[in-house]
Amino acid sequence: MHVIIDLCVVPIGVGVSVSKYVAACQTILHKHNLAHTMHAYGTNIEGDWDTVMTAIKECHQTIHDMGAPRITTTIKLGTRTDRPQSMQDKIDSVNTKLSAD
Amino acid sequence: MHVIIDLCVVPIGVGVSVSKYVAACQTILHKHNLAHTMHAYGTNIEGDWDTVMTAIKECHQTIHDMGAPRITTTIKLGTRTDRPQSMQDKIDSVNTKLSAD
Amino acid sequence: MHVIIDLCVVPIGVGVSVSKYVAACQTILHKHNLAHTMHAYGTNIEGDWDTVMTAIKECHQTIHDMGAPRITTTIKLGTRTDRPQSMQDKIDSVNTKLSAD
Amino acid sequence: MHVIIDLCVVPIGVGVSVSKYVAACQTILHKHNLAHTMHAYGTNIEGDWDTVMTAIKECHQTIHDMGAPRITTTIKLGTRTDRPQSMQDKIDSVNTKLSAD
Repeated sequence: MHVIIDLCVVPIGVGVSVSKYVAACQTILHKHNLAHTMHAYGTNIEGDWDTVMTAIKECHQTIHDMGAPRITTTIKLGTRTDRPQSMQDKIDSVNTKLSAD
Repeated sequence: MHVIIDLCVVPIGVGVSVSKYVAACQTILHKHNLAHTMHAYGTNIEGDWDTVMTAIKECHQTIHDMGAPRITTTIKLGTRTDRPQSMQDKIDSVNTKLSAD
Repeated sequence: MHVIIDLCVVPIGVGVSVSKYVAACQTILHKHNLAHTMHAYGTNIEGDWDTVMTAIKECHQTIHDMGAPRITTTIKLGTRTDRPQSMQDKIDSVNTKLSAD
Repeated sequence: MHVIIDLCVVPIGVGVSVSKYVAACQTILHKHNLAHTMHAYGTNIEGDWDTVMTAIKECHQTIHDMGAPRITTTIKLGTRTDRPQSMQDKIDSVNTKLSAD
């Protein structure tokens, strides 16, 4: 099952700066060869359900190993069976509607 | 790794009423013996990471099989390594602060 | 416009325990006479759009005043025009489907 | 109060394609002169709290007026008092950590 995810991992109890933990996550996504694009409030990820979920679990384990005692993560997750759709397809679909106006 | 999750599954393309799909999810959580409590905008779930994730995947597969062509799901997901914490512990912790006022 | 919301406020940079900040939010919701129910990963709130949003803004201001330098909040927010629906209606609707099986 | 938001609006009961509703939202954000960047699972928005919230309310009203009987929206929302931070600052901060490895 193909999935498009938006992942936002927030380590708690390590102070106000969390970017090094987010960077560690990016490295894990890259290692799993998952297509991913970071934005200002999370990272879009696309791939096979099990691979994506394995990577997210590894993010939690790694961030705990880096010293964060607590993590709260927000995930948006989309699947569809009617047709294949990539992350870029979703963006193109809205842009087409915009330029049609 | 123990996880506390808030799960909100939204089938798209099946009209305005989604309760039968949410009910199917509840049945799957029950089958996996996962502690879970439904609220007005999702379901709290507690358990082993892999069991919880297996159940969520099964929710998506079942809802697609029921005829929903598209699903968007929102998940909040917490892990901690400093101490064990149940769903009830989290609620008790806030209530203690409230009654202390 | 009537809205049902799930609110989860996470102060960052104040250590691992966040319950006193969540308790302060509960007090603000109560002050605004908003129907609200806490669960293990947030609080369901129901009411007029503007009142709810005013209360959420006050939560952020209060938590910053309590010393949290950074806050990340997750909100799920539902509106509908086809029929009135309360928080309890949503739960009842799923439970009816469950007991029908 | 300055806020960085990730907004994901999902109309329910209008079939499987939701891009024209998302496009209507983009137009509203543009009209309010809010800095915003669309990604594959939402839109990052940056600006004054009240202006952003006014725009989001207008998105809901417009999408209902376009015929959607039900909308479920997911919002991530960040404020900080320790220092100013733009959407681009957040991305740069992670990228700096990545290139330092």
